[in-house]
Amino acid sequence: MAFGWIDEQAELRRRAGLVRTLRPRPADSPLLDLASNDYLGLTRHPEVVEGAAAAARTWGGGATGSRLVTGTTELHTTLERELAEFCGFEAALVLSSGYAANLAAVTALAPHGSLIVSDAGNHASLIDGCRLARGTTQVIGHADPEGARKALGTHDGPAVVVSDTVFSVDGDAAPLAGYARACREHGAGLLVDDAHGLGVLGEGGRGAPHAAGLAGADDVVTTLTLSKSLGSQGGAVLGPARVIDHLVNAARTFIFDTGLAPAAAGSALAALRLLRREPERAARARAVAAELHARLTAAGLEAVPPDAAVVSVRAPSPEQAVRWAADCRSAGLAVGCFRPPSVPDGISRLRLTARGDLSEAQIEQAVRVIDATRP
Amino acid sequence: MAFGWIDEQAELRRRAGLVRTLRPRPADSPLLDLASNDYLGLTRHPEVVEGAAAAARTWGGGATGSRLVTGTTELHTTLERELAEFCGFEAALVLSSGYAANLAAVTALAPHGSLIVSDAGNHASLIDGCRLARGTTQVIGHADPEGARKALGTHDGPAVVVSDTVFSVDGDAAPLAGYARACREHGAGLLVDDAHGLGVLGEGGRGAPHAAGLAGADDVVTTLTLSKSLGSQGGAVLGPARVIDHLVNAARTFIFDTGLAPAAAGSALAALRLLRREPERAARARAVAAELHARLTAAGLEAVPPDAAVVSVRAPSPEQAVRWAADCRSAGLAVGCFRPPSVPDGISRLRLTARGDLSEAQIEQAVRVIDATRP
Ligand SMILES: Cc1ncc(COP(=O)(O)O)c(C=O)c1O
Ligand SMILES: Cc1ncc(COP(=O)(O)O)c(C=O)c1O
Repeated sequence: MAFGWIDEQAELRRRAGLVRTLRPRPADSPLLDLASNDYLGLTRHPEVVEGAAAAARTWGGGATGSRLVTGTTELHTTLERELAEFCGFEAALVLSSGYAANLAAVTALAPHGSLIVSDAGNHASLIDGCRLARGTTQVIGHADPEGARKALGTHDGPAVVVSDTVFSVDGDAAPLAGYARACREHGAGLLVDDAHGLGVLGEGGRGAPHAAGLAGADDVVTTLTLSKSLGSQGGAVLGPARVIDHLVNAARTFIFDTGLAPAAAGSALAALRLLRREPERAARARAVAAELHARLTAAGLEAVPPDAAVVSVRAPSPEQAVRWAADCRSAGLAVGCFRPPSVPDGISRLRLTARGDLSEAQIEQAVRVIDATRP
Repeated sequence: MAFGWIDEQAELRRRAGLVRTLRPRPADSPLLDLASNDYLGLTRHPEVVEGAAAAARTWGGGATGSRLVTGTTELHTTLERELAEFCGFEAALVLSSGYAANLAAVTALAPHGSLIVSDAGNHASLIDGCRLARGTTQVIGHADPEGARKALGTHDGPAVVVSDTVFSVDGDAAPLAGYARACREHGAGLLVDDAHGLGVLGEGGRGAPHAAGLAGADDVVTTLTLSKSLGSQGGAVLGPARVIDHLVNAARTFIFDTGLAPAAAGSALAALRLLRREPERAARARAVAAELHARLTAAGLEAVPPDAAVVSVRAPSPEQAVRWAADCRSAGLAVGCFRPPSVPDGISRLRLTARGDLSEAQIEQAVRVIDATRP
């Protein structure tokens, strides 16, 4: 039977205890949320919500086509200009998701005959970008500038080093300075995904490339998502204007995709403006992360020192991680639970988001529940 | 210099006259729009706009994470249930774009060792899905059931035939019955992309699989976009519940992507309910297409007989197509202009959308402008 093999795979998953199921989420969840990527707690901010509603009213429910066919609204242009300015880059291009932005950037910057050097901890969307690109991919170790240097040394012609700035699972930061040095020694480009850096790292949340002094350099391109700190949906690629022009002409997930919905552009723009007005939100998210980590460690739990606003806590096994997360939930706390095959190293963990709007009491509650439910 | 090769490519594009640039679009464009994919003219319908605004108010500006991590809102569940019901399928999964839905469906349904048989006219997102999938792809001719039959005959193991239902460039329909027969002879699955069929084809706009009697079959899966007839953003995969469960567990563009923004889900749901209440909108889009085609042909222009709501008019050359579209624009009419490398066959054309809400006077105006500006 067609699709019969699906049942065999489902049975294997069931036996391995790795079945994923969708859980309902009510609009007014009583749970304390440390599972989302809403780092600054902006997604329900009245200005962000009104940004979405006003944009839909002015521009309609959808973009109605590829922006190359139906044109670019003033809203999209404004969002691109303000994102580029804020993060310190010359130009920006907004796409329908962070996933699409990563596919666009990697494929457009790695033509036939080029080399892609890819950090082993990279996000699925960067990996899929590598697989779609015409260039050849060489995977190096995790956070491995020396590996990048060696890989670049073996290649003649265009090359690009690709890395998350903050890795989504453990929340550790990439060695951006080391990667940039390796790139410059070999005339290679550097492409980084600042999905988990924007709004958290750098002065006022300008992101990891800005913090590393790499923003605006002619050999650096960054991708963003509008779905985390900016509380919306969408993605962007930021870089030199010539690179952005190139993407408009070459990136299939831009050319052949409907433009980002006006409501999503509107809420992301509202969140960006909030962040500019209230730059302390970024530092607060980092402080919450540090405090969460300190308290969890004091309680004897094994947590990775956070470089941004993600705190990762190790679990002894996939089954125990799942039970731990479920017990947290029963005790009123939503946490992320990452386990194989979503984690590259096979280690299961709870993943906590240090939202900048958590109160002291909420931080205390979170630590208490995690400690009390530990396996 | 890093990215130096980009300038060479830009120069080649310039010389070939193939530079793409973004054009601004004001909120209240005076142009008559035959360029968008807003087939039913719903994107600015008050109910669709209010659907976006209300959803943002209730659920926030973004989904805040992968639905596997932060849960599935009632809004997403309702949209999935009503989409599946309307189109006649058992279950549905909503993703952040039609592009993401196609990547999800193709990669999840074509595991290592499987065969993908892909129509030569397929959309970029299906092609990228084939390139990402672990299975082997064999490209057949355009609209070629006999080619599908032959390709399937050469393979043992899981196989899937992949095709648009309505091809986006020329607006011609795929031979769905022929493809389905070829699949059933060989126990293969059929995966079709109904991006341009939903809202236009089938009883009340239920789409091409419904019209072909294929909806709900256990060997048929369809993808949709929410960005065309439904005037929003997003995509969906519809099929047997076991296939949808499989996608939840295996599709990277679902698992590792933030859920669709509530506003986009809200406007798509509002549009879907409008379409159920006013099923004549679908027939009207088809009638507008037939009338546009008849009048253009009567004027001596070479237009492809429309199978849905896209009318494609041939242009003698890429340069003349670009000038023709620009002249239409100067005369108050927005049309699409497709040319290499976006068209598989190298033929340049104007692409007209037969929006169901066009009046007789607007149809007449469109034909008059296209005729008066012809090369
Ligand atoms: C590092 C990273 N990059 C890209 C993405 C994709 O962004 P989006 O969800 O906005 O498509 C994610 C997560 O969703 C991510 O964690
Ligand atoms: C046939 C087809 N499939 C898929 C897509 C992608 O859908 P979306 O733009 O909603 O991502 C498009 C166009 O955008 C299309 O024309």
